[in-house]
Amino acid sequence: MAAALAAVRAGEVDAALVPFENSIEGSVPATMDGLADGDPLLIAREVFLEPSFVLAARPGTTLAGVRSVASHPHALAQTARWLAATLPTLAPQTETSTAGAAEAVAAGRYDAAVCAPIAAQRYGLTALAEDIADHRGAVTRFVLVAPPGPLPEPTGNDKTSLVAVVADRTGALLEVLREFAARGISLTRIESRPTRERRWVYSFSLDCEGHVADARVGEALAALHRVCDDVRFLGSYPRADDRENRPVAGEATDAAFTDADEWLSRVRAGRL
Amino acid sequence: MAAALAAVRAGEVDAALVPFENSIEGSVPATMDGLADGDPLLIAREVFLEPSFVLAARPGTTLAGVRSVASHPHALAQTARWLAATLPTLAPQTETSTAGAAEAVAAGRYDAAVCAPIAAQRYGLTALAEDIADHRGAVTRFVLVAPPGPLPEPTGNDKTSLVAVVADRTGALLEVLREFAARGISLTRIESRPTRERRWVYSFSLDCEGHVADARVGEALAALHRVCDDVRFLGSYPRADDRENRPVAGEATDAAFTDADEWLSRVRAGRL
Repeated sequence: MAAALAAVRAGEVDAALVPFENSIEGSVPATMDGLADGDPLLIAREVFLEPSFVLAARPGTTLAGVRSVASHPHALAQTARWLAATLPTLAPQTETSTAGAAEAVAAGRYDAAVCAPIAAQRYGLTALAEDIADHRGAVTRFVLVAPPGPLPEPTGNDKTSLVAVVADRTGALLEVLREFAARGISLTRIESRPTRERRWVYSFSLDCEGHVADARVGEALAALHRVCDDVRFLGSYPRADDRENRPVAGEATDAAFTDADEWLSRVRAGRL
Repeated sequence: MAAALAAVRAGEVDAALVPFENSIEGSVPATMDGLADGDPLLIAREVFLEPSFVLAARPGTTLAGVRSVASHPHALAQTARWLAATLPTLAPQTETSTAGAAEAVAAGRYDAAVCAPIAAQRYGLTALAEDIADHRGAVTRFVLVAPPGPLPEPTGNDKTSLVAVVADRTGALLEVLREFAARGISLTRIESRPTRERRWVYSFSLDCEGHVADARVGEALAALHRVCDDVRFLGSYPRADDRENRPVAGEATDAAFTDADEWLSRVRAGRL
């Protein structure tokens, strides 16, 4: 993940599709931290994929001949029962990515890798077993990350991602949540994470419903910008899971904000 | 009070100074309701006065000859102990204003009135006793009410008054308070009042620190306009008691709001 994000930041690639969270394992810390730190990047879209894992080895290897196996820890976690049942005497080794594990098998450093079928193909490996994930239906949410630029247009069913950094003080999380609740905005994910640079300063990584172009979302983010130590905007993009955003309450629509702004202008001018 | 407000609304007078609340008796319901209902009026300033009450009678009347006494209920309440000690056998009568009581004495309907020295003078009465208030230092807050027009300029030490009407639902008051707290605005007075037209619909009459021209106050009022059934703006005017507004927190200054708005514009344009 770090390499993919670095390649986007360096301009070597236009965008990278990186795993953001997994329905079994939760968030992917390397991606979270990779987006929160360093030069700003934008999430242009989200994609939900059901990963398919194979046990890949060099051609000619048999299952009985596998003496070592490697993969990314998430992939090992998602195939742990299958591995324990099939290769009970092996202690799997960890690599920084499933593709990296496949590459290491091709280079002869391990006998087998848990990886996606496409990685096996890419490194000239054959599948000793297919569909080896313990839980069928485990879904990984990927995000397409690109350099800053024009945001995707609002579709009416969007999500917005951001990281809010707040000092360690009583009620800090409540203050963050209040800015969303007061404007009728539902959160779809929130996670507190330590900030690596500063001890006792927390960051909240969160997704909310709506697009930053929506009045309610824009005002909430502007409020966080005032209240928090730092707010990093990660993107507004079409919602791609199979759920619809909650209906927007009457007082939280763009029309309600426009009406309130016009009323305020009249009040300030003394036209009651 | 109702007559004074009606005269302002009818354009018969330019403005009226009406009692708003009293440090002993609390708010003046007739003024509260008179401002909340009917054509909009604006509070242009507040004045704190220590009322001086006299017992006024027609020339020639002696204290021993007083057989009836009348005044406004607030004035009677503020002189109750003096009246009970001095005229123990009389049951005071109520009039709609202290000046009205003085006028009624002049017309011969009562022997004496509890009123301001100026009212006694105006109706040709003489003071049988002066400074008869039980509590010295009771202060009445008056407001100068005028037809809608340009607001007083912000002075940096202003108050804003309004009435917010909310349907009867759990958390309604909390929603109102949240809009102020989230923007670092202190309230100096709040009072729930029944709305006369609609049962089970409450109105909150309140004063907050700051001027509607301030970004934090303006945004809070616009939010109330969205969230409440109705918001009636009553005015922004210089604070005239002997207290200073609390210092404005860094995140609630106009500069912080401007900075947040500029940040939001950059985010919406994808310039991170």
